[in-house]
Amino acid sequence: MSAPTDIGVVCPLPGGSEQACITLAHGGGGRLMRELIEGFIAPRLRLAPAALTVDAAALGPVSAPLAFTTDSYVVSPLEFPGGSIGTLAIHGTINDLAAAGARARWLSVGLILEEGLPLAVLGRVLEAMGQAAAEADVRLVTGDTKVVERGSADRMFVNTAGIGELLLREPPGPQRLQAGDTLLLSGDIGRHGATIVAARESLGLSTARLASDCAPLHGQLEALARAGVNVHGARDLTRGGLATAVVELCRDAGLAATLEAVAIPMQEEVRGVCELLGLDPLYLANEGRMLWLVPDDETDRAAAALRRAGATPSVCGRLHAGQGGEVTLVTRYGTRRALDLLSGDQLPRIC
Amino acid sequence: MSAPTDIGVVCPLPGGSEQACITLAHGGGGRLMRELIEGFIAPRLRLAPAALTVDAAALGPVSAPLAFTTDSYVVSPLEFPGGSIGTLAIHGTINDLAAAGARARWLSVGLILEEGLPLAVLGRVLEAMGQAAAEADVRLVTGDTKVVERGSADRMFVNTAGIGELLLREPPGPQRLQAGDTLLLSGDIGRHGATIVAARESLGLSTARLASDCAPLHGQLEALARAGVNVHGARDLTRGGLATAVVELCRDAGLAATLEAVAIPMQEEVRGVCELLGLDPLYLANEGRMLWLVPDDETDRAAAALRRAGATPSVCGRLHAGQGGEVTLVTRYGTRRALDLLSGDQLPRIC
Repeated sequence: MSAPTDIGVVCPLPGGSEQACITLAHGGGGRLMRELIEGFIAPRLRLAPAALTVDAAALGPVSAPLAFTTDSYVVSPLEFPGGSIGTLAIHGTINDLAAAGARARWLSVGLILEEGLPLAVLGRVLEAMGQAAAEADVRLVTGDTKVVERGSADRMFVNTAGIGELLLREPPGPQRLQAGDTLLLSGDIGRHGATIVAARESLGLSTARLASDCAPLHGQLEALARAGVNVHGARDLTRGGLATAVVELCRDAGLAATLEAVAIPMQEEVRGVCELLGLDPLYLANEGRMLWLVPDDETDRAAAALRRAGATPSVCGRLHAGQGGEVTLVTRYGTRRALDLLSGDQLPRIC
Repeated sequence: MSAPTDIGVVCPLPGGSEQACITLAHGGGGRLMRELIEGFIAPRLRLAPAALTVDAAALGPVSAPLAFTTDSYVVSPLEFPGGSIGTLAIHGTINDLAAAGARARWLSVGLILEEGLPLAVLGRVLEAMGQAAAEADVRLVTGDTKVVERGSADRMFVNTAGIGELLLREPPGPQRLQAGDTLLLSGDIGRHGATIVAARESLGLSTARLASDCAPLHGQLEALARAGVNVHGARDLTRGGLATAVVELCRDAGLAATLEAVAIPMQEEVRGVCELLGLDPLYLANEGRMLWLVPDDETDRAAAALRRAGATPSVCGRLHAGQGGEVTLVTRYGTRRALDLLSGDQLPRIC
């Protein structure tokens, strides 16, 4: 039997043992909620003390135009090789801002907790968030906690919103894309999606090397900005994967693209999971991969900058004139395959 | 049988009829998700088109220091007399910023939708959000949508984060509170909490006049700023109600307070619900009431400004030296009662 913490309420476990859990009273606005937030949540998130006594955080001086983004996270399972819902929430928001050309500075954290959630799980998730934010030099400045009764949520959901400062003189966007632009992929694809599905299906694969690619990508943006690369477009390759990102970018820009399968790196383990389950790795979610779109004559400079930031960039394709949204994959065998948005759902609750 | 919309998937209803609903594929990152967001969500929220093609919104020029806040909303039922989860989400974030002395400018919207949620309900909630934001001259600039399988959430949850510009030279906060400060309550209390509990319990009360007080309070802040009032503190009286707000402010400031029950306005219907269910209206949630704390000699000027903004302010108490967090209520009968944080939970999922 694990000892309850000061703020926990002891809940029975199926085996007859007990553990400290979230209860509805933790969300009621009273003493227990204050103790949960001040004594448990805030220190793990490394929240500034001011965040506890005012309804909104005053931000420091701003030195550049700002960008703003939000994401909710509902991934199942909450913890997986390479990360957790907490690391996803921090890295995902940093990366959405990076895709808009902005360096994340301030993040908010909204928690929805299900009654019965073990405090041990919540504690690990929050510690991972605090650590991920500190490592990326991002400040968690304001938060909110809600509790819903058992059966009204699946353990916990997290929302993060983020404010970043634009590092690029002109923000990337579909209106800036041009025929001839290079598609520069920052690393191998599909690891996050394959890891989640392997964890869910309890595959008998040797998946010791399979872990989520979850990582913050602000360093890549900073390197490109320092090198003065004129970034035309960027896309964080999360839900829908590489294929969806390229199709959407092309639709929004009124351009076509050709991708080269041989230039799209993939771990052997990811290929194995996809073959076993009939998944297409081009549509698998990534949580630490960016597609950078740059002018042809800046490709080498951009790739060198990305390598300095620890990435292993690969020129995986090119934009060209054509019907907007028409994307062609040249396969390893030299045949051509049209890529489009998925009409159904590949994997739910991947992030 | 209602006709499915273009993007809906028809779900069976208990009575044998059908309606268009959210399915897991709406969250999968593919075609259906794009159609849901572009064709259904964005127009109702009146989202800027740019929000659909980039991962983060570039904000316009900033003319004052910024404040940042977030809240998740899990209220049940989703719709109630006087509002819905959508109006709560917009007004709540505007009000959190107002309590920090800031005028809301930009909001993000994060949706977590349960498979099977009727599109008709989602549509009404989103339209209410778009309208509430437009009426308060606040822009919804970025959003995110997740779908979870049936049973993993209760219909829908909403997160809003907001950025505002500070209107007051010095932001209000517990460190600025002083003995002698006046507690200025912006209107009658308890209507939101009483409305939610009456809706849940299907009370046989004549509750025709009972509706949530849900409203945006930025106008009160603007009026106080224009009048040059030196606002020492402010608190949006949501979860935990007036009593919790005063206890928390006093604890954080190391001061005591005395409240006068005769100066705390309450609708007869609210009193009725509380008597019937044994609830204390001082702890009931409000969603359109602010407690402003101002220097004694600025009270009349502050009250006049609040009246110009449409409020009906009441001087309901005063801060004084004493043990930090010690709050006393002088009842209608002249007796004295100590107020503290609730140790348990009064009402779950009130906001």
